[in-house]
Amino acid sequence: MKIIIDILGSDLGPAEIVEGVCDAFEKSSASFVLVGPKNIAQEIVNGRNIDKSRIEYIDTDEVISNKDDPARSIRRKKEASIVKGLNLLNEEGYDGIISAGSTGAMLAGGLFITKRIGNIDRAGLAAMVPTPKGTTILMDTGAVMDSKPEMLEQFAVMASVYAKRVLDKPEPKLVLLNVGVEDGKGDMRSKETFKLLKENVNLNFIGNMEARDFLSGQADIIITDGFAGNVMLKATEGAVKTMFSEVKKGIMSSFLTKLGGLMLKPALKGVAAKYDYKEVGAAVLLGVKKPLFKAHGSSDRRAIRSAIYTAEKFIKNDVIKNIEEIYND
Amino acid sequence: MKIIIDILGSDLGPAEIVEGVCDAFEKSSASFVLVGPKNIAQEIVNGRNIDKSRIEYIDTDEVISNKDDPARSIRRKKEASIVKGLNLLNEEGYDGIISAGSTGAMLAGGLFITKRIGNIDRAGLAAMVPTPKGTTILMDTGAVMDSKPEMLEQFAVMASVYAKRVLDKPEPKLVLLNVGVEDGKGDMRSKETFKLLKENVNLNFIGNMEARDFLSGQADIIITDGFAGNVMLKATEGAVKTMFSEVKKGIMSSFLTKLGGLMLKPALKGVAAKYDYKEVGAAVLLGVKKPLFKAHGSSDRRAIRSAIYTAEKFIKNDVIKNIEEIYND
Repeated sequence: MKIIIDILGSDLGPAEIVEGVCDAFEKSSASFVLVGPKNIAQEIVNGRNIDKSRIEYIDTDEVISNKDDPARSIRRKKEASIVKGLNLLNEEGYDGIISAGSTGAMLAGGLFITKRIGNIDRAGLAAMVPTPKGTTILMDTGAVMDSKPEMLEQFAVMASVYAKRVLDKPEPKLVLLNVGVEDGKGDMRSKETFKLLKENVNLNFIGNMEARDFLSGQADIIITDGFAGNVMLKATEGAVKTMFSEVKKGIMSSFLTKLGGLMLKPALKGVAAKYDYKEVGAAVLLGVKKPLFKAHGSSDRRAIRSAIYTAEKFIKNDVIKNIEEIYND
Repeated sequence: MKIIIDILGSDLGPAEIVEGVCDAFEKSSASFVLVGPKNIAQEIVNGRNIDKSRIEYIDTDEVISNKDDPARSIRRKKEASIVKGLNLLNEEGYDGIISAGSTGAMLAGGLFITKRIGNIDRAGLAAMVPTPKGTTILMDTGAVMDSKPEMLEQFAVMASVYAKRVLDKPEPKLVLLNVGVEDGKGDMRSKETFKLLKENVNLNFIGNMEARDFLSGQADIIITDGFAGNVMLKATEGAVKTMFSEVKKGIMSSFLTKLGGLMLKPALKGVAAKYDYKEVGAAVLLGVKKPLFKAHGSSDRRAIRSAIYTAEKFIKNDVIKNIEEIYND
């Protein structure tokens, strides 16, 4: 198995990504192609006690940043790491790609270079969200704007395959994000999607779920339009951040609270780590012909390692082949 | 000034609402009409050292609950407290209503009994959200599904009047909720709304805002479609709740952390209170001909008192007259 790693475009720089790849040797048996500045990557790899024959390099300094227009850059910046990586992925013998760079570039690259699976209308971005009960898949988180109910049904099918094959959930509980739990709630898109999900006998559709239960872990898969999914994910991220900053302010307010904070530090750190998006690993673009993983822009080495393990399981368990079989019927 | 209080339909029962009204006598100079079980209300009022001549009663036991179909119930349950209250509000000499009962009933009642202001296409629900920098208005939070860009522009105008007249912000900073901060982001609705807000010279439109900055307080007003607004508000509520429950679990995990938790208790309680929706007071339905305030279903007496103070300021400062003047031009 050969996984391509785009080492450019992340917030913490290429070295952090390469360290994560080296760390993954602990449990991974894959080979890796590192796309980005070869001198930086090679220096780190050479300093580590790992099997160097499992690492190749594609040297480039060009990057597509969050400020670039994604579709335009994917077409013009031929030397950009993500473009080189995706083109390589189209060749024989490469199994997947992981990037912590621009999400827009990954989405545009998925569309223009990797291309969609035949009968899939749009590819959607499925995020893995930590909850007190385990991982919940949220799809779509912003790849598709103005999605149609039929697209959301396809997302539901693809996310179910993912949950079965990668998260080991044989009958993943699937819900539709809505403004109320009752049947018939929501906007026109929600109402029509509800019907489609209910009629699809291959889905374990439970019903509507409100955003306040997002982190409850009561659903294995939450299906939603990309706009609302993006809003829910970012609102949660923002609220968690605000809460920790407020608790910190409270801790710093007096001698007694500082002492209390010191005693609580390990416990608070544990909670912070659990809900830290850097620890989540990667989101996956479902609906394209190859495994495309998007790690959070601020992914640290642990996040990259975790993304690699997820990608390996995804590749080994033939998620895409399984989706293609459903949509070639 | 006479404010109608629907004392039925809230989670904590009528007594809590009546206590809140009595507490409001501390700073309020309004009179009140309590609609609901008169015996319960009168017993509480008689036990308090307040000017009883400022309280009237409308006796009824009927309530519209969250399980009832709102539009149907508003038309058929003539004895329901919210129906009696809204009908009374249409008469001369009544200035506003506050209810902690069913949101759906309040919305349907606003539409069928109070009715919309002439040139307003839809009435929207504006929530007051606590942030580290003060109150941010979020509108719409779920009154309107499938809103059109023109409706969102009207929400922006009405929320700006509210911010000026009730929150004392002469030039309220207004943003559009979106999936990215750059111009041209989002779904079709967002793109068109962006243009309308930008062209409207009477608005202090700053640009797009992502959901992760919801609680930052950098905006005075956040405009959004009711579906996304509802999702953002409830996701935040859920995340805050999950964080506190996780911190609590951390505190309970050992003797040392329990001790630390004890020392931090006042600080944590302060944060919890600040972001507790019970403390927020009330949301207001903007676009109807009279002041309609919706308090959170789990409002305690403090929340009711705070809602009364807000309603008084809203009435005294002629918010609705001001909106009508704009839309009669």
